[in-house]
Amino acid sequence: MIGVFDSGVGGLTVVKEIFKYFPQEKVFYFGDTLHLPYGTKSEKTIKNYSEKIVSWFQKENINLIIIACNTASSWAEEYLKNKFKDIYIFGMIEPTVKEVARIYKDKKIKKIGVIGTSGTIKSRVYEKKLLEINKNFKIYSKSCPLFVSLIEEGLIKDKITKEVALKYLKPLKEKNIDALILGCTHYPLIKDLIYEILGENILIINPAEALIRELKLFFENNKQIKNKKEKNHKFFFSDVPYNFEKIKNFCFNKKININFEIKNPFNEKII
Amino acid sequence: MIGVFDSGVGGLTVVKEIFKYFPQEKVFYFGDTLHLPYGTKSEKTIKNYSEKIVSWFQKENINLIIIACNTASSWAEEYLKNKFKDIYIFGMIEPTVKEVARIYKDKKIKKIGVIGTSGTIKSRVYEKKLLEINKNFKIYSKSCPLFVSLIEEGLIKDKITKEVALKYLKPLKEKNIDALILGCTHYPLIKDLIYEILGENILIINPAEALIRELKLFFENNKQIKNKKEKNHKFFFSDVPYNFEKIKNFCFNKKININFEIKNPFNEKII
Repeated sequence: MIGVFDSGVGGLTVVKEIFKYFPQEKVFYFGDTLHLPYGTKSEKTIKNYSEKIVSWFQKENINLIIIACNTASSWAEEYLKNKFKDIYIFGMIEPTVKEVARIYKDKKIKKIGVIGTSGTIKSRVYEKKLLEINKNFKIYSKSCPLFVSLIEEGLIKDKITKEVALKYLKPLKEKNIDALILGCTHYPLIKDLIYEILGENILIINPAEALIRELKLFFENNKQIKNKKEKNHKFFFSDVPYNFEKIKNFCFNKKININFEIKNPFNEKII
Repeated sequence: MIGVFDSGVGGLTVVKEIFKYFPQEKVFYFGDTLHLPYGTKSEKTIKNYSEKIVSWFQKENINLIIIACNTASSWAEEYLKNKFKDIYIFGMIEPTVKEVARIYKDKKIKKIGVIGTSGTIKSRVYEKKLLEINKNFKIYSKSCPLFVSLIEEGLIKDKITKEVALKYLKPLKEKNIDALILGCTHYPLIKDLIYEILGENILIINPAEALIRELKLFFENNKQIKNKKEKNHKFFFSDVPYNFEKIKNFCFNKKININFEIKNPFNEKII
């Protein structure tokens, strides 16, 4: 069983890849809809929520956990890995940076765009990690805070989303970037639009796909790990998810049935 | 001292009116930026947060409290009034409905539009309360979930916001509504745009202004109430507010200085 958490429903784009590449694995999913969005909240807050979620997963005996949210990964991936050394934690940043290193191993100058929530961009984690592997990279980061709302409203094909995308991507297009990291779980849902604006020659890097490669390697190298076995996937949200059916159908293209429970693992009291 | 709470910074549009009409009063403001937005969360969650905030205000000896958030008012105004009978609680709904009753006291058929967050519209509270005062009203409700994000991104004058507004307001324009209730604290910031789309003849009802009338009446009728006296306004947010300066400057037109503290009154533990 693979634990996956996200601030909401966006992590389903990661689940989609897990279903595709590891059909034998069951997923234990938690979307923190009670506290979403993570993208505009502070580092301290995101670390705090993420730590609580991982603690809860640990209590549920899940020892392989994916931080499907890029904002949580940006602020808390290293923090959680240091804090929970006896479980396996994968964020979105490290696999993505490794993927870029693999693609551009000749270490030539490359212009790489990164788009994400305000939190992800503000953290500058992608930027720092990418420059660590290759100082010749030119990194152009752009926060795209409206994308999540537009996608969650189901306006994926709407001209308004196209206008917003044109506005956000203009500075990256002008820089003639070679590759673009989709640093938010929602963005793969507007990949076609991004290609349309930036051209088919751009290399689009989807962190979910980079993560799959890391997971494959991990399973190959850790054949003996004791991973909790369950018969069914489990999906939990801390509050009723907004527009769940819409996003689910976008994620999985065809309609699949996902049963979920509302479960709030946080006990909130006034001090 | 008047307690004011909101899910975030939108309640500053209410504070602006309080500053204007009750310059002698000090404001104790809490924006629950840790949990925002309220607009897409469930009734249960909003009741829960609102109750905790009012409990905290009560501990701070504040006995006059304004629920500046329309979503919190929609789900929890009556609930909080019933729960905290020994303090004075004002939401946005009741004053607004009274205002409409006052304006349209001849009880003729009138077409009234209501715009708000998904939560406010889903609650149907405005609709129900308006029909209670006049069965001849025709109510046309429309949730406008992207407005808050667009405003918080500072895109008030952007053509994208205009396009979104055209899309949202089209069905209301087609119904030829007589009046429109701005059922979200952010919306007064795009009042000019709404006039531009719906025409200058529309009657725009700003709940913050309706609230001021109620408060004036309240102070006239309750001259003896023991209201906590403080020298300074106090502003608190439960997490670092996103784009605070931008919204603050929009709200107050001219630049005024607002010092705030980050204070999280919620003690959140994993169960």
